[in-house]
Amino acid sequence: MEIKVLRDILEANELIARQNRQLFDRHGLYVVNLMASPGAGKTSLLERTLEGLGGEFRMGVITGDVATQLDAERLGRHGVPVLQISTGGECHLEARMIRRALDDFDLEGLDILFIENVGNLICPAEFVLGEDARVMILSTPEGDDKPEKYPLMFRQSRALVINKIDLLGMVDFDLDKAKERAWRIKPKLAIFPLSCRTGEGLEAWFNWLRKEVASR
Amino acid sequence: MEIKVLRDILEANELIARQNRQLFDRHGLYVVNLMASPGAGKTSLLERTLEGLGGEFRMGVITGDVATQLDAERLGRHGVPVLQISTGGECHLEARMIRRALDDFDLEGLDILFIENVGNLICPAEFVLGEDARVMILSTPEGDDKPEKYPLMFRQSRALVINKIDLLGMVDFDLDKAKERAWRIKPKLAIFPLSCRTGEGLEAWFNWLRKEVASR
Repeated sequence: MEIKVLRDILEANELIARQNRQLFDRHGLYVVNLMASPGAGKTSLLERTLEGLGGEFRMGVITGDVATQLDAERLGRHGVPVLQISTGGECHLEARMIRRALDDFDLEGLDILFIENVGNLICPAEFVLGEDARVMILSTPEGDDKPEKYPLMFRQSRALVINKIDLLGMVDFDLDKAKERAWRIKPKLAIFPLSCRTGEGLEAWFNWLRKEVASR
Repeated sequence: MEIKVLRDILEANELIARQNRQLFDRHGLYVVNLMASPGAGKTSLLERTLEGLGGEFRMGVITGDVATQLDAERLGRHGVPVLQISTGGECHLEARMIRRALDDFDLEGLDILFIENVGNLICPAEFVLGEDARVMILSTPEGDDKPEKYPLMFRQSRALVINKIDLLGMVDFDLDKAKERAWRIKPKLAIFPLSCRTGEGLEAWFNWLRKEVASR
């Protein structure tokens, strides 16, 4: 019974995601669904990206949060359109939440839309939103064993950002092991070790985004 | 419809949690439901606690994981009974999973049972398991804004362990702010800043556990 309900929910979600996709296509938008644990650096990566690529692309952000507007306030300072979805306790974004948000969000003229998912390494991986690419962040303090422990999100991601490399040596994280484990789950996954704090490694991430947008 | 199903699931869960509770009471067990984000240090805290209190209490661990046996293997090295629940993708433990696990787990002679929940700051907070206390871990790299962003888990916890204080100064985490924000959500929450890496602060956590077990 529970499984049946879940299947119905996932099927309904995919249907709405396809409609979102059509809307994005009409606007020629490149859409990223950004997923990670709480505190891995989703908002920080977006802030860095808005700064770094602001001269090249017109970007917008839809950000999902369980309870607050904190992320939307941080992102709003960067002068791009930001819309906050408060999920009211829900642990992930669903396609219907994005569709509803799009009623209040002008896609016209945008090149890239980032959707910042709820901080959670499990549930968001089950719900497509209509994005071009799912990108996940793993931060070094979380440990290098995470690909094996949370395989679904790694499998469904097109790129993996490994954030907080400035902490390497102070936390139990072996960068080579982490990469190898991620590639075992998802061969050819694009991996970008970087630090939103120091800026190290950001350029490779920007270049990947440039190529992605150009080839869509 | 979705809401109705969720309510039914939560009610069924509470019923089974009460049955688990009766079983724990019959064995005079003190039970902790340990919750945190992926990589915050649940397994590390348990390892430290098994080491530190092994001479005083007989302890057991039931550990929930989405996909692997990694945590159970780490904990099993400490010579205590460990049972692994593989949730098969589920993002939290439910009372029925504990009940089923208890068929294969001998509670006789134990003083403390730790239940290590799935790494997730949202969903586990909704499902009681029959525990005496819910304890959550927040690690400093996750940021000091988490109490406001994930209020339910803070509200439902009896104690908060703030792990990885050895990284203070290298991450954006103000210990006083974090405490103040946590207490705003849950006044009188017991808070234990510590480092499983260096061992600093562990004694206060052990003392709290000693008192809890003695007063049950």
